[in-house]
Amino acid sequence: MNPQVGIIMGSQSDLPVMAEAAQMLEELGVQYELTVVSAHRTPDRMVEYARSARERGLKVIIAGAGGAAHLPGMVASMTSLPVIGVPVKSSNSIDGWDSILSILQMPGGIPVATVALNGGKNAGILAASMVGAFDAEVGKNVDAYKKGLQEKVEKSAEEIEEKGWKAILKK
Amino acid sequence: MNPQVGIIMGSQSDLPVMAEAAQMLEELGVQYELTVVSAHRTPDRMVEYARSARERGLKVIIAGAGGAAHLPGMVASMTSLPVIGVPVKSSNSIDGWDSILSILQMPGGIPVATVALNGGKNAGILAASMVGAFDAEVGKNVDAYKKGLQEKVEKSAEEIEEKGWKAILKK
Amino acid sequence: MNPQVGIIMGSQSDLPVMAEAAQMLEELGVQYELTVVSAHRTPDRMVEYARSARERGLKVIIAGAGGAAHLPGMVASMTSLPVIGVPVKSSNSIDGWDSILSILQMPGGIPVATVALNGGKNAGILAASMVGAFDAEVGKNVDAYKKGLQEKVEKSAEEIEEKGWKAILKK
Amino acid sequence: MNPQVGIIMGSQSDLPVMAEAAQMLEELGVQYELTVVSAHRTPDRMVEYARSARERGLKVIIAGAGGAAHLPGMVASMTSLPVIGVPVKSSNSIDGWDSILSILQMPGGIPVATVALNGGKNAGILAASMVGAFDAEVGKNVDAYKKGLQEKVEKSAEEIEEKGWKAILKK
Amino acid sequence: MNPQVGIIMGSQSDLPVMAEAAQMLEELGVQYELTVVSAHRTPDRMVEYARSARERGLKVIIAGAGGAAHLPGMVASMTSLPVIGVPVKSSNSIDGWDSILSILQMPGGIPVATVALNGGKNAGILAASMVGAFDAEVGKNVDAYKKGLQEKVEKSAEEIEEKGWKAILKK
Amino acid sequence: MNPQVGIIMGSQSDLPVMAEAAQMLEELGVQYELTVVSAHRTPDRMVEYARSARERGLKVIIAGAGGAAHLPGMVASMTSLPVIGVPVKSSNSIDGWDSILSILQMPGGIPVATVALNGGKNAGILAASMVGAFDAEVGKNVDAYKKGLQEKVEKSAEEIEEKGWKAILKK
Amino acid sequence: MNPQVGIIMGSQSDLPVMAEAAQMLEELGVQYELTVVSAHRTPDRMVEYARSARERGLKVIIAGAGGAAHLPGMVASMTSLPVIGVPVKSSNSIDGWDSILSILQMPGGIPVATVALNGGKNAGILAASMVGAFDAEVGKNVDAYKKGLQEKVEKSAEEIEEKGWKAILKK
Amino acid sequence: MNPQVGIIMGSQSDLPVMAEAAQMLEELGVQYELTVVSAHRTPDRMVEYARSARERGLKVIIAGAGGAAHLPGMVASMTSLPVIGVPVKSSNSIDGWDSILSILQMPGGIPVATVALNGGKNAGILAASMVGAFDAEVGKNVDAYKKGLQEKVEKSAEEIEEKGWKAILKK
Repeated sequence: MNPQVGIIMGSQSDLPVMAEAAQMLEELGVQYELTVVSAHRTPDRMVEYARSARERGLKVIIAGAGGAAHLPGMVASMTSLPVIGVPVKSSNSIDGWDSILSILQMPGGIPVATVALNGGKNAGILAASMVGAFDAEVGKNVDAYKKGLQEKVEKSAEEIEEKGWKAILKK
Repeated sequence: MNPQVGIIMGSQSDLPVMAEAAQMLEELGVQYELTVVSAHRTPDRMVEYARSARERGLKVIIAGAGGAAHLPGMVASMTSLPVIGVPVKSSNSIDGWDSILSILQMPGGIPVATVALNGGKNAGILAASMVGAFDAEVGKNVDAYKKGLQEKVEKSAEEIEEKGWKAILKK
Repeated sequence: MNPQVGIIMGSQSDLPVMAEAAQMLEELGVQYELTVVSAHRTPDRMVEYARSARERGLKVIIAGAGGAAHLPGMVASMTSLPVIGVPVKSSNSIDGWDSILSILQMPGGIPVATVALNGGKNAGILAASMVGAFDAEVGKNVDAYKKGLQEKVEKSAEEIEEKGWKAILKK
Repeated sequence: MNPQVGIIMGSQSDLPVMAEAAQMLEELGVQYELTVVSAHRTPDRMVEYARSARERGLKVIIAGAGGAAHLPGMVASMTSLPVIGVPVKSSNSIDGWDSILSILQMPGGIPVATVALNGGKNAGILAASMVGAFDAEVGKNVDAYKKGLQEKVEKSAEEIEEKGWKAILKK
Repeated sequence: MNPQVGIIMGSQSDLPVMAEAAQMLEELGVQYELTVVSAHRTPDRMVEYARSARERGLKVIIAGAGGAAHLPGMVASMTSLPVIGVPVKSSNSIDGWDSILSILQMPGGIPVATVALNGGKNAGILAASMVGAFDAEVGKNVDAYKKGLQEKVEKSAEEIEEKGWKAILKK
Repeated sequence: MNPQVGIIMGSQSDLPVMAEAAQMLEELGVQYELTVVSAHRTPDRMVEYARSARERGLKVIIAGAGGAAHLPGMVASMTSLPVIGVPVKSSNSIDGWDSILSILQMPGGIPVATVALNGGKNAGILAASMVGAFDAEVGKNVDAYKKGLQEKVEKSAEEIEEKGWKAILKK
Repeated sequence: MNPQVGIIMGSQSDLPVMAEAAQMLEELGVQYELTVVSAHRTPDRMVEYARSARERGLKVIIAGAGGAAHLPGMVASMTSLPVIGVPVKSSNSIDGWDSILSILQMPGGIPVATVALNGGKNAGILAASMVGAFDAEVGKNVDAYKKGLQEKVEKSAEEIEEKGWKAILKK
Repeated sequence: MNPQVGIIMGSQSDLPVMAEAAQMLEELGVQYELTVVSAHRTPDRMVEYARSARERGLKVIIAGAGGAAHLPGMVASMTSLPVIGVPVKSSNSIDGWDSILSILQMPGGIPVATVALNGGKNAGILAASMVGAFDAEVGKNVDAYKKGLQEKVEKSAEEIEEKGWKAILKK
């Protein structure tokens, strides 16, 4: 089966954040592809990637970048697919504000679906929820994942109520 | 045909921003519904809205709110559908930072697809692109819309090159 | 005797901060309970906790959370009790601003009593002062605690005046 | 009956914000007093106000101030009662950040219950909820107030659903 | 003579700021061209503009844009000419921070020479100083312009010293 | 008698703020001079002003400027006199942050005594307090001024207590 | 000889920053005293310190504090002497912004001479320059100190020019 | 051949950042000189450097400084050459904001070409591109450098596509 989600990042140094998107998509049963595409260093490659995405069968693109992060917005300008932007907190970033604002504050007409700073994991879940809105099986996986979160919190609550916070803190 | 996109907002005062989402969806040929749901003032209504959204046939939810904006994140926690969050710059907002950060910085597991401050229009386009990834006709409409943007810029460039910037500024 | 203060947090990782609230309540002679409740991962549990709080005899709720912190505000929307919010500086937080603003900037009608970033200790003292306003003994404990702060500063001043700052710095 | 809540502000120019606290207390059936006390211009008056508050029967103090706002924190250091701080956005304020941070970020031991920027109304409700935790009638009033908010939102939702957003926007 | 400086902007709404660059270049005797090129709406046009700039004889490009401003950085990635970026404070901008950071914080390898918010005038002077470093006549014009600034300040100082500040303020 | 305080500003447009410093010095009985000196437009004039200040009998220099405000720091680097810096919120300023930080954050060795944004009045009082530390009469004037502030607040408090806040608000 | 400068700090944990002020005053030949005074924990001690300062012979007060830093402003409200405020970056500070803004943004009438974050050293030099404006010997010491800075930079420049930056970096 | 680019910095502690500019100029075949010049500690040296720069044959000046960074702007006020400013994140900086804003936000008439925080490398490339606009050989070197960036990204993409992200992360 062809990949439905394309994960791209501006530099291999973004991989630790972006790999979490890939990991989540595997867990949620969504096919994906992952590579490096730089808006500033390989503009032609970026244009080709964005323009061919739909016909290659992708349904969503996840793009991560740091600093003055132009990759998500530029890709969004060249495809009709939804683009999820992941602000990456790179070295010499100003606490991540640069990356957040250059992805989030897109002008009217060219939206980017922005997630939290270093939010690779959430980008994966969001992409799966977009696929899952139309694919019942993936939708169920997303539902199950959220129920799993609930169970973890409930166990954690039980543990703290039974053992008391002092015992937990000592661990 | 049933609505595919649900637009909700925390207060009627958010309508001028959120109406732009509705307007875009009409232009792009996507059915939608629009109402007021407040996370803080009508929590039960919010729970019911979020939990029934998928079975009522919605594919995407757009939620806008200002200040400590909890509506998008809370709705996202109770559905497997993708949720688009629109930070609204309300009165007494701190330049919109409060609304942006309380929508964007969701914890791992519960993503919200955040758009720019007051970005109702972009939320509509983003929702259409999610639908359009699976519905070829809507996909074409999104493509056509983006081409329309291009033509407007090209006309504007022609005008300024022909008349000169001094003539344009005088207008 | 029943607990008068309920301490809740969005995740067990918030415990080091929130345990300071529990510690202070013990010192000031106020009964409390402590558990994990997540707005996003266990919304039903949160609703139940908030709605039953008053009839279970609680007088104050202390709620801590990080990032887009919705727990304090959501709980406040479902109880007539005062809710103290503790912004926790989680990993991937943007210097704590996200947590502070999503707790502090609540809309008109639904206040949250916000304390400083990571201010678990102060949340405990504040809860005790609310109880102490109506319970003379707890009120005396709060008074005594503040006098204790004064004595510590006075001793510290004496020490630095006697030994000189150079001796203190060498320590 | 003696006032249970004392409302103070650093300058008469803060009155439009702080009057909303008084207004809410009247609606919720809580006796209050209101006056001007400046940390920087009348330090003796402030000391006397804070130190006598408890014996004069007050249960809560609401203090509002702008810029480098020291009144709430200084009063909190001299009473065992809970102190609610209202950051006021004064002229020459830096978007309100100065006032928020000088009220919120109190050191360990001396909490101030901070509400949103210009949040006089919420300060009044918060004070009422503190009183209402121990006074059943006031508690009921707070509950009723929150239900009233719910009804307003529900009516607003009905209106928008019936008339459609285009009719509402035209108003 | 061919233009040496190319002025481009993302939208005609940026013209009031960018026209100041053109105005300064006229004053300083530098030939220029001016048009509209949008990174997001006309990506092909942008690529062509950037790639042909050098062979068309340009020595400097001035690019202005607002919000998530990608035009200056994208152009810089596709030419060996120096690119001056002008952050424009557009409506719905977050006080201009978005535009500043998405132009300034370019990754290693692709610099943009950023000027102050709405600094169209300074962009024009900076471009002239780059030309003037190699063209003695333009260099003299820049020198003369800076001397003119000095004279204006000296006259203003004389006026205030002679008439007194009270007379000046009354004007 | 010679002036003891020199007030300088980077541009005549800063006069409305800086005139308040002059006004306060007149009220407090301190001789002053006032003129325009620009760090960037008249660097030689600035050097001369700073280097001759002490021998001309000045005891304090007050320097105001907006944007990237270099005047206070540069003057401080060329005199042994204390320099008070007034951040002025100019047009195109980023909410005043640029001016505040370029005056406040001076490197080790070259302090500037920074006052609040647009704090011309406070700069005047601060200069008077420096003179008044050594000149008993000026010291008394500063004392009297602060007592006058106290009286104003006390009158304002009396008024609000007598008439009630509703009457005051109606004014 | 009596101390001319009083150095106070809110907590002994501020000593590493504030000791630099003491160190500078020793180098510049100015007598000082140093102790701990807390606005929030020892308000009476603070009032006494501030009110007696002038008659005890002090000419300047240096006050340092972190977080919601009220000590400098409160002391300034109770003395006619100039007060220098040192924002200290404490643990749980929000990058120092809280401390800077609560010291800098004082209301009209009560100035604090604010120095850079953690600027204990500059506070010492500033205090010496205030004393030195009236005491020729101290004035000379400040002058000599600034010349010393110049020599250090010149030596550093010589070294880098002779040895080359590569040799320096290897060190 | 004479140096065409002058690199200066406020303190030897800025060398690790500024050396990257020198390194890039060597790679791109541009002659440069490098030394230490402090706006605040050696103002005369700065004036001389700036005023003689053009006649000594320089075409561009790169100036780096931290905190309240006045060097780039002051140098720009005294030469008709283009000045590139490098904000350096020094210790006690407020996350670099102080340095960025005091370099970027120059007043009308005196531009500084600002690069990213700690952007020494980009300053070197930018200076080379200014020289390369008029010197064909340097222009080719800049072109070649940008192509080299492209190749690196393409190799990195190939590697990640062949080996898979899991293998890369394990490295």
